[in-house]
Formats: sequence, C-alpha cells, structure tokens
Amino acid sequence: GYRTLRENDTGLNGALEIPAMRRLLPDLRGKAVLDLGCGFGDFARYARAQGAEQVIALDVSANMIDAARALTDDPAITYRHASIEDCTTAPAAFDLTVSSLALHYIADYPAVVQRVFDSLKPGGTFVFSVEHPVQTAHPVGWVRDADGNRLHWPLDHYQQQGARSTSWFVDGMIKYHRTMETYVNTLLDRGFQLRHLAEPCPPAEVLQARPDLEDTVRRPPMLILVATKPAKRK
Amino acid sequence: GYRTLRENDTGLNGALEIPAMRRLLPDLRGKAVLDLGCGFGDFARYARAQGAEQVIALDVSANMIDAARALTDDPAITYRHASIEDCTTAPAAFDLTVSSLALHYIADYPAVVQRVFDSLKPGGTFVFSVEHPVQTAHPVGWVRDADGNRLHWPLDHYQQQGARSTSWFVDGMIKYHRTMETYVNTLLDRGFQLRHLAEPCPPAEVLQARPDLEDTVRRPPMLILVATKPAKRK
Repeated sequence: GYRTLRENDTGLNGALEIPAMRRLLPDLRGKAVLDLGCGFGDFARYARAQGAEQVIALDVSANMIDAARALTDDPAITYRHASIEDCTTAPAAFDLTVSSLALHYIADYPAVVQRVFDSLKPGGTFVFSVEHPVQTAHPVGWVRDADGNRLHWPLDHYQQQGARSTSWFVDGMIKYHRTMETYVNTLLDRGFQLRHLAEPCPPAEVLQARPDLEDTVRRPPMLILVATKPAKRK
Repeated sequence: GYRTLRENDTGLNGALEIPAMRRLLPDLRGKAVLDLGCGFGDFARYARAQGAEQVIALDVSANMIDAARALTDDPAITYRHASIEDCTTAPAAFDLTVSSLALHYIADYPAVVQRVFDSLKPGGTFVFSVEHPVQTAHPVGWVRDADGNRLHWPLDHYQQQGARSTSWFVDGMIKYHRTMETYVNTLLDRGFQLRHLAEPCPPAEVLQARPDLEDTVRRPPMLILVATKPAKRK
C-alpha cells in the first residue's frame, strides 16, 4: 500500500526531499505551523521536536490521518481530515506553512496560494515542494535503450498546463502540471516575496553511496519554493 | 552572416523574445538605460523612442557596434565595444539594465549580477532573457522519428552546470548551462527582489499563423527574469 511505497520511496523522499526541505526551514522554536498534506505526520512531529509551539496538520486521506493520530501522543499537534482546498483557518494565525509533494495534486493552485497568504502572519513563511515541472509536463518516464539504460528524459507539452493522467497506483489520483512561471508568478502576484528556489540534487558523497539516485542529476525531480508574506512596516 | 541569421531568426526573436521583453519593461520615459549585449542596437533605439533619457549599449562584437553606430543618429545613445564581463559603469547610475539572450554566453554569471546590482539606482530594474535551462542542459536538438517529426525534447545533464559546446556558426562561442535555481537564487542572494519569471510562448492567434513556432509550446526556449534593487527606505 501507500505506506510501503512511502518507505521504499525514501530513495527520493528520504535522500532528497526531506533534507532539502529541512535546510530551507526557518527556526521552528515557538512557531505556529500549518502542514498541508501531512501524510503520516512525520513533519508535524519533527516540527515539535524542533520547538514548534503548535502544529495543525491536515490530509485528505482518512487512513493517513488515523495512522498519524496513532503515532502521536502530543496535544500540541492537531491532525485534521480535510483537503487542502477545503481547509479553513483563522486569518494571520501561522508563522510557517509547509506542504511536501502535495500541491501537484491540487487543481486550483492560485486559490491555495491565496488561502496560505491569508493564513500567515505578516513576516510568515510558506515552504513547499512539488514534482518539478519538467517531471509533470509529460510523465511517461525515461526513454531507454534496448538494454533498459536511461537515454534521456523526454520533455513535451510544457505549456499545456492542467491534469495529467498517471499510472500511480491510487485510483483517481490526478496530477496537475504547471509551468515554473505559474508556480513562481502566482506567489509574486499574490504579494509573496520569493526567498529561495531549489531544485535539490544529492551531494556528491550521497551519490557515491546511492548510484540509484544518479537520475536526479540528469533531470530535476522536485522543485522547492520558499516565500514570505511581507512584514508590516513599522 | 550573423545579421541574416538574426533577421531570419525573427521566428523566435521577433515573435517571442522581443514582445515578451517589451511587455515586462517598466515605463521608459526619462530613464537611464544600460543594454548588455546590444547587437545592432535595436533595443537602444526602441528605448529612446519610448522616452528613455539616455542609453548606454555595449557589445563584445566590434562589427555589431560599428553597424549599430551606422544605424543611429542620436547623441543620447552611446555604443561601446566592450564585453559584459569587462563593462564598468558609475555606481547607482541606471534606472534599468536590460540584456537580451546574452548572459548564457557569460562564464561568470554571479559577477555580472553583482555588477548590475551596483550599477542600478535603488529601485532600479534588471530585465534579462536567456536560453531556458531545459534548452541549454543538453543542447542536441529534438529527438525525431524516421520521417523527421519531432518526438520530444531530450533533457539530460541538468545539474552539470558550465560550458556546453555548440554547433552555432560563430567559432568559439561557448554557451553556459545554468539551472533555474542558479539563475534565480543568484539574484536573490545578491539582494534583488524577483518581480516576474516568464517562460514566454506565443499567444494562440500567433501560433495559428505560425505553425513553425509550435515547438515553443512543447518545451520553453527562453527564460525572462525581472528583478528590482530595493528602494531606500524613507
């Protein structure tokens, strides 16, 4: 099931996405944190271990939220069974909103950006990872030679934004392709300031130990954006 | 020669790059403008026609600078034969610095960003276009079927930044590949604020009239970034 996939998938999640996201987070001590698409709650527990004051974590999967609750004995973490699109929070309530590899499942990205902007305190930070646009544009996998060796990653249909069918095993999970222009400008147009754009790849020593990650050097699998809501002028 | 290429090349330059850049420019009236890699000076003359007060335009090609001077009878435009790397200007002298499809020929992008930052007035704008990272990563052209139809654009070697050999006709012109992360974060790290990221593609009506531009919808050929130097707080 999904959980096994996630664990096996530490190829990418564990070696690439999680360390890259953690490097880009602000200091968590005393912070109010919102996690959009929390899965089993790994990040919620990490944030608390780093000193976050409270975490609200939501996921559209009831099974994941049940498992997250079973794994957690911490009254400062609240798990909610809710979709990212339907989540409502108090305005200006959070210092940090995080979303890991979830927003490419969301049809209406501008609406989420608006909601996150409203939910953040002035000076608050939004950090999220998504599958990279070159990954979602034409998701048919590597072109291979007769021996199965990867020749190159095929890029196509880049400007045709919207739903992509997927061979992922969960029925009905649709991924949405967006361009880099859309990911970045939607933030800027809403009033966020872009702080960092990352296309993480493993450091050389990790690559030596994990030759299975070499494809991440050949085409970027993920995009991480860090943006802040402007602080009020004094 | 190059000039014929540029004129024929209005496939991309005329239909895509020039209109996209012009849409993203600030109001030019009364502005002091610097053009890095001016070619025949088309932009310098356009900027003056739009009300720019003075334009300094430089190019590493003596032939282009000679041609630019021959085409121009305007004392408010100064053409200089200089490379972008070696250009020196007074600090905080310009309202706008523009560079069209030139910075992918420059080995030391951070040094240029530093120089542009210093040369701009507080509140000044830097607008530049480059070949898109997916274009420069593995510049071998479209993968085609036996009939010559384009199947997809091959992406590879994305994280290996640096020089790429090129089959372009000018001997010794080396292009440099950089990731989107490098293009954007170098600006942010230097203190620029990102205002816009564009991956221009032709509007539908242009595509109908110009089916030869359809490949620009399949993979983005260009990247345009607009960044500003923070204004001084009052």
